Amino acid sequence: MTELPSYDQLPPAPEGGRSGWGIFGAQDNVGLINLLTPERVLDAVRLIRRGALFPLDAPLDAFTPPIAATRGIPRHHVLHAAGTFGFDDVYDNFFPQGSSQWDSLGHVGYAPDAFYNGATEDDVATGRRNTIEHWARHGIVGRGVVLDMVRTLAEEERPYDPGTSTAFSVEDLELARRRSGVEFRPGDILIVHTGFASWYLGQPMGVRAQLSRTYATPGIAPGEEMCRYLWDAHVCAVASDTFAVEVFPPERGTALGFLHRMLIGQFGMALGELWWTEDLAADCAEDGIYEMFLVSVPLNAPGGIGSPPNALAIK
Amino acid sequence: MTELPSYDQLPPAPEGGRSGWGIFGAQDNVGLINLLTPERVLDAVRLIRRGALFPLDAPLDAFTPPIAATRGIPRHHVLHAAGTFGFDDVYDNFFPQGSSQWDSLGHVGYAPDAFYNGATEDDVATGRRNTIEHWARHGIVGRGVVLDMVRTLAEEERPYDPGTSTAFSVEDLELARRRSGVEFRPGDILIVHTGFASWYLGQPMGVRAQLSRTYATPGIAPGEEMCRYLWDAHVCAVASDTFAVEVFPPERGTALGFLHRMLIGQFGMALGELWWTEDLAADCAEDGIYEMFLVSVPLNAPGGIGSPPNALAIK
Amino acid sequence: MTELPSYDQLPPAPEGGRSGWGIFGAQDNVGLINLLTPERVLDAVRLIRRGALFPLDAPLDAFTPPIAATRGIPRHHVLHAAGTFGFDDVYDNFFPQGSSQWDSLGHVGYAPDAFYNGATEDDVATGRRNTIEHWARHGIVGRGVVLDMVRTLAEEERPYDPGTSTAFSVEDLELARRRSGVEFRPGDILIVHTGFASWYLGQPMGVRAQLSRTYATPGIAPGEEMCRYLWDAHVCAVASDTFAVEVFPPERGTALGFLHRMLIGQFGMALGELWWTEDLAADCAEDGIYEMFLVSVPLNAPGGIGSPPNALAIK
Amino acid sequence: MTELPSYDQLPPAPEGGRSGWGIFGAQDNVGLINLLTPERVLDAVRLIRRGALFPLDAPLDAFTPPIAATRGIPRHHVLHAAGTFGFDDVYDNFFPQGSSQWDSLGHVGYAPDAFYNGATEDDVATGRRNTIEHWARHGIVGRGVVLDMVRTLAEEERPYDPGTSTAFSVEDLELARRRSGVEFRPGDILIVHTGFASWYLGQPMGVRAQLSRTYATPGIAPGEEMCRYLWDAHVCAVASDTFAVEVFPPERGTALGFLHRMLIGQFGMALGELWWTEDLAADCAEDGIYEMFLVSVPLNAPGGIGSPPNALAIK
Repeated sequence: MTELPSYDQLPPAPEGGRSGWGIFGAQDNVGLINLLTPERVLDAVRLIRRGALFPLDAPLDAFTPPIAATRGIPRHHVLHAAGTFGFDDVYDNFFPQGSSQWDSLGHVGYAPDAFYNGATEDDVATGRRNTIEHWARHGIVGRGVVLDMVRTLAEEERPYDPGTSTAFSVEDLELARRRSGVEFRPGDILIVHTGFASWYLGQPMGVRAQLSRTYATPGIAPGEEMCRYLWDAHVCAVASDTFAVEVFPPERGTALGFLHRMLIGQFGMALGELWWTEDLAADCAEDGIYEMFLVSVPLNAPGGIGSPPNALAIK
Repeated sequence: MTELPSYDQLPPAPEGGRSGWGIFGAQDNVGLINLLTPERVLDAVRLIRRGALFPLDAPLDAFTPPIAATRGIPRHHVLHAAGTFGFDDVYDNFFPQGSSQWDSLGHVGYAPDAFYNGATEDDVATGRRNTIEHWARHGIVGRGVVLDMVRTLAEEERPYDPGTSTAFSVEDLELARRRSGVEFRPGDILIVHTGFASWYLGQPMGVRAQLSRTYATPGIAPGEEMCRYLWDAHVCAVASDTFAVEVFPPERGTALGFLHRMLIGQFGMALGELWWTEDLAADCAEDGIYEMFLVSVPLNAPGGIGSPPNALAIK
Repeated sequence: MTELPSYDQLPPAPEGGRSGWGIFGAQDNVGLINLLTPERVLDAVRLIRRGALFPLDAPLDAFTPPIAATRGIPRHHVLHAAGTFGFDDVYDNFFPQGSSQWDSLGHVGYAPDAFYNGATEDDVATGRRNTIEHWARHGIVGRGVVLDMVRTLAEEERPYDPGTSTAFSVEDLELARRRSGVEFRPGDILIVHTGFASWYLGQPMGVRAQLSRTYATPGIAPGEEMCRYLWDAHVCAVASDTFAVEVFPPERGTALGFLHRMLIGQFGMALGELWWTEDLAADCAEDGIYEMFLVSVPLNAPGGIGSPPNALAIK
Repeated sequence: MTELPSYDQLPPAPEGGRSGWGIFGAQDNVGLINLLTPERVLDAVRLIRRGALFPLDAPLDAFTPPIAATRGIPRHHVLHAAGTFGFDDVYDNFFPQGSSQWDSLGHVGYAPDAFYNGATEDDVATGRRNTIEHWARHGIVGRGVVLDMVRTLAEEERPYDPGTSTAFSVEDLELARRRSGVEFRPGDILIVHTGFASWYLGQPMGVRAQLSRTYATPGIAPGEEMCRYLWDAHVCAVASDTFAVEVFPPERGTALGFLHRMLIGQFGMALGELWWTEDLAADCAEDGIYEMFLVSVPLNAPGGIGSPPNALAIK
């Protein structure tokens, strides 16, 4: 693979920002996950030193009532298996974006009927383009880099409440990166630890329920500076323990004010939400090592819009 | 961890065979997956040489009509996401054992009301013991070893039809192992390639439908010799591309005639079924290397009986 | 409405039998339920003498394991209602043909792509033609006439086992009709009591499960004589407590050997299956009155293929 | 049945209002539907003069987005029926209170753990008491009486917007009743036409969505005067085309401020919501007859909390 262009070398996109379409070919449905080449897998493998495993998926039924009121937790039935003393089980109402998740490249478009790499709404809805199985069949394996916003802000003595619409600027991310002692490399999987998931799980139902009205959740700041920063870092994915990676509610009406439109719809970047990063972040704080092997195996779900990440960090 | 006893050192179990209960403590819900220690993770990591990824999950909707008529493929809905030009999705009728899967230790007991490690039927049905989240929270990472029964039998010039109840004896498995040039090590994840899944996917619907009447599928042979062989190899898991790991239909009435009862109910061994092993087996045949790094991240599904393996082999 | 033609006046249908298409206009989706005019409602009302109610729906979860293995009983969840000390509930896996049911005119066609009144497969699958809401919006109210096959055969001293493929001939139905003292009138809703449902509910699971292999259930005999008899009686519906109204398994390959193809696909006749007729039949035997007011309100389910009848007989 | 006591003769209930528990025996699960005796069925039959049918169920998928955000419209799948050129169908996410509905006596209690007739929360959640099948097995047949609030207020020249929290007082109901020329009789099924359902169905999605935030819907006024009025009228049911029969949002904290607690939890009265009353009300306005035969056959759903009414008015 030749080197990626810089953000400012990309052609402008019609509703603001710049366009990453076509970089991996007109028919590509994988996006920046293409950066996860065998060489980068081998580079990441070298980061495994202790054999310590960090599962990154919260329980499927953790986030209830749902923040997005149109989702919900699965309904689970345990069934006696036919012809034996044993059990089967079955789920209904299983929203693959109801707990820890990847957004596929079909989740949000850049503009109406303009999804990543020129896919139409119909391409996505019928499973012809950009859906989750493309990542399942590629495999997501590479270097994870943890940016711990909670400890970064605490060290800066800046007050921070994970139950609010706090935006992390490029400068904030850079503070966290420098604190980690890591330089970005193409194909990195950024893990932005905000403390939101563990805060949420400690709240009573009434407080949780408020979120489906306000959507007040922390995350990275919108705007072109953030787009340039993430693209030029050549990260293939940003995963976080917050609702939407970016601060919410967004400014949906503009492409640069609602980063999903740019990051998914133009860059083909994988966004991971509501991941369980608490244990991994604590371990990084303890051993001072913020880079690790990361593997994620999304469901091989033809036509799927999202998936639990089924992710594991290994240090 | 001290060394595991041999099969003949285990205490006898009341309905035949021997008992592995209590080895990891009276409260254990993880079984032989406990063998996957950090040291064994590190040993397995050394097997990664090329950075080549082999996803091992068949599509969620591949096996239809279902072989077990009480299961089925998921019903999938793509939904317009509230407040944006984008999509969400939701599944109903999602049987985690409907395609590639792990059986949790709650799937089949040794005897009525006698599940692995002394759990009751009620313990399993209510999610108190043996359910799938215990493996999700531990992580499944170790050495995979491929036993390719298709190529082994072909080289022996023995006729073989993957659409029949063909039983693979201990001797057959040993032939395949020797052919692989691998010695078993504690904690190995055995991958028994039978050719069933790719045969099935090439059949017309009428032939597939017959299977829900006959259950005629290949797999390892029942009996005490097989139990002794697998226990003494100290493998933690056996995964296969066939319906039930063991040959079907089984002799359900006896503990040694229906291996699920022994392997899951007494040994606490992980059984993986309907995995997609075709590409991995072909690669092993090509490079002659039958051991590899294997990672699987089951769904973090509290109280779950089964899960897609979300598995990846890395060579 | 002008009088209906006789069976022998109908034009021949291409794969056998005769065709009822076009009688109520080219765009009709209601079929013989059109016979239930206000005048016939008023005629039926006069049959109410005691104010006695006979609900005709079996419980939604009565028929398990399902006779048609591709159906099943609903999965029911009771949920705490948001913001109150109360409950809501929700069903998944709700097959409207899983218990007492109407087949809509979209359930079975006369021939591939040839459904009642010329509808295509696509017309039905997309809900444009023949689906259940047309009856819900019309209302099904008229005279019910009970033909009690159990008591008729017993009086004839003919052995009869409701757990077998017993076919009731036109002669048998005529015996039952004469025994009832009823002359057919256009728009009658025939209720053929076979004793199957109460037999089934008294069987152990193993016996019930056999049915999904054999489909051995009693019902009216196939063939042209039966078609002529039912058409010339000008009944609008035949409901029964057996699996398929007609004896099963049918001879699917011929239009006259599988009556669904003729009765639904050509005549536009409503077929009711697995109704609970035991109490009504017993009452008829007691008071000797075999005609009654009958009301059924199918679910107003746009695009629906079947529905519980939600039926009540009033005497 | 002996005559019912008057409201002021009932014993006081602990959190306000008076108690109807025990009137039909300690084990009763049917409530005021017990008033629908064969004699009252016969009285109602006499109201059928024209044979005109008025289906009272809105389509199952009419109310979306749902007013109660924890409900939703069914997900419907049309399936090819096994072994024939025909179709089956299946529903997931079927909320029996998602469109036109009855609240069973298990829907809301008088107080925490105090449901109609002394049932506990556990009695309801496990289907032992008060659930919907008791009405399905009794049958709901009697006299319907329409109170048309829309035309009553229009004649009074009072401004009225069905999209607001408008409360109808006892005086308002009396105005409508006198206008109808009807005297209440024990067992009457009151049908309060508010115009809400037809207003809702004419609104764009944005306006509809607001309702899940505000719950601003019209209905009968709370308070003891209303309880006394409805009890002393000895109506067995109140059905309406509005969200909750009573004006919403209610004052949930007091028993007399949230009528569900009194009417369902103490009186055992059937409440019908989101019924389609537009056509029936228009017909009453035209012929000046506001009483009619009414039949409703709820789903025979063991343990069910709600059901579509499957209701038909016949004039």
